[in-house]
Amino acid sequence: MKNKIKIAICGYGNLGKGVESEVSKNPDMELAAVFTRRRPLASLALKSDVPVVHFDDASLWKGKIDVMIMCGGSARDLPLQTPVMASLFNTVDSFDTHAKIPQYKASVDAAARESNNVSIVSVGWDPGLFSIMRLYMGAVLPDGKTYTFWGKGVSQGHSDAVRKIDGVKDAVQYTIPISSATDRIRSGETPEFTAREKHERLCYVVADDNADKNRIENEIKNMPDYFADYNTAVEFISEDELKKNHSRLCHGGNVIHMGTTGDDNKQAMEFSLKLDSNPEFTASILIKYARAAYKLSKKNECGAKTVFDIPPIMLCFDEDEAVKMI
Amino acid sequence: MKNKIKIAICGYGNLGKGVESEVSKNPDMELAAVFTRRRPLASLALKSDVPVVHFDDASLWKGKIDVMIMCGGSARDLPLQTPVMASLFNTVDSFDTHAKIPQYKASVDAAARESNNVSIVSVGWDPGLFSIMRLYMGAVLPDGKTYTFWGKGVSQGHSDAVRKIDGVKDAVQYTIPISSATDRIRSGETPEFTAREKHERLCYVVADDNADKNRIENEIKNMPDYFADYNTAVEFISEDELKKNHSRLCHGGNVIHMGTTGDDNKQAMEFSLKLDSNPEFTASILIKYARAAYKLSKKNECGAKTVFDIPPIMLCFDEDEAVKMI
Repeated sequence: MKNKIKIAICGYGNLGKGVESEVSKNPDMELAAVFTRRRPLASLALKSDVPVVHFDDASLWKGKIDVMIMCGGSARDLPLQTPVMASLFNTVDSFDTHAKIPQYKASVDAAARESNNVSIVSVGWDPGLFSIMRLYMGAVLPDGKTYTFWGKGVSQGHSDAVRKIDGVKDAVQYTIPISSATDRIRSGETPEFTAREKHERLCYVVADDNADKNRIENEIKNMPDYFADYNTAVEFISEDELKKNHSRLCHGGNVIHMGTTGDDNKQAMEFSLKLDSNPEFTASILIKYARAAYKLSKKNECGAKTVFDIPPIMLCFDEDEAVKMI
Repeated sequence: MKNKIKIAICGYGNLGKGVESEVSKNPDMELAAVFTRRRPLASLALKSDVPVVHFDDASLWKGKIDVMIMCGGSARDLPLQTPVMASLFNTVDSFDTHAKIPQYKASVDAAARESNNVSIVSVGWDPGLFSIMRLYMGAVLPDGKTYTFWGKGVSQGHSDAVRKIDGVKDAVQYTIPISSATDRIRSGETPEFTAREKHERLCYVVADDNADKNRIENEIKNMPDYFADYNTAVEFISEDELKKNHSRLCHGGNVIHMGTTGDDNKQAMEFSLKLDSNPEFTASILIKYARAAYKLSKKNECGAKTVFDIPPIMLCFDEDEAVKMI
């Protein structure tokens, strides 16, 4: 293939590394560069043989990158970085602060539109694939109810919150769906659940020597927003055990829709994920929407889109082959 | 709402009745007429208060129908009827003879294009939602394998095949996925299966008085294409029992994709359906794609499309509300 889609990565954390590992599996794509805010640039130990470029030099690469995959965090990185990059390149990102998506999308849209670029925002599995499932399910069976469950999996945000507690050396938090809740839905009920009834939380904590474990446990269990509304178990373990048994970023979840048609005929739809590596899976999705962004830009479209706007066929490398699989 | 989308039904069997029952659940739609080849027209006992129109008079309704939902069978009805209707109206249909879809789509496309109409072909759950799932899963994790299982559910085609055997008064055939096969995939394997290893078949048969049940059972079990490649169980029951216990058109199935990323990280995706009423569920999907066909025609598009071409958002009644659900 002569003209491969030139992909760049902005941000070299777990997600950026996932994109680096997965992009080469696509025959129509090649990694062109990795962008970062860190200095020195040489501190990034890339697996691939591409240049590391400082974020501030991005404009020098205008015209040399087809799609920039934004791999920074939603809290501090993406709201600032994506509009900058969208004014130079087509972009995709995994902005996942649900409540702020409209505002975020508007700011990316303005930048992308002005420069005739396409940006697909909030791509990943939630928001992303799970959003698509909620939409298909809710549209097909409007007379019904959709539930989302996450886990069993590591929540980065909750793990970070525990790590900030005084006396905590390291920690990993698992979000776990409560099976009696999923079982009730699958059996045809459509209950209202409290947060506590849908998920429970399990923390593995490495405490500093001499730290008061009772106090740490109490602080975790009573932390508002993060833990107070859930049943939380706290287990203290050694640093070695944490590294050995809890360093994999596994995750997963379910979208379940229970609807009715006609004379109270129950119709159940469910989508589920079970992931050994959350960042690599998210990266795989971002890469496919990067392809879609590239195709849209070739059709002279511009502005910010969501996964809802993208026809499924646009994710495919070989559209003619894909159509045969209907 | 002033201008509701005017929906018509062509073919008043199980699927047509499903569309009739579900269309009223959509605030932006109304049923305008039911088209049929049967005479006398009065023999159709509609539930709704709309005209019954003969197929041959369809051209009189040009301009009065926004979308015609084709509810005939794939073997004999749709290949003839859809091109005729596509030359008069926007259409959606559930053509499901997988191997013939390209040829069918081409003939519908020619008719629709010439008359500036939009036709969405092969809509339903397989082909349809399951196709979309296979596409998303295969695109996201190209390093992987997708499996489709059907059932437990009633296969109309297989039930008909049994009914044609001499001495069979009535019959219902269930397709049943073999759970040891789904379990193997879910546990992370990606085996090659024969047809026999994926599904088994169960036939409930009402025999004529004095019919040779051994012969019937043998004829079923050895029927090529339909049963010979499967383990099939045959049970003879009374007409009453068949009516009482086997008249519901339940169905369902699973699309399972087992993929890998990075250093052999397993990533599993699964979509499943459990349906009390196959025709009502299929009808619900057809109705949402009728909405999409209407929207596309308002954008001056024309020609035949598949579900792969339709952005998810187009299925929604209220697009602004839907975007908030990302």
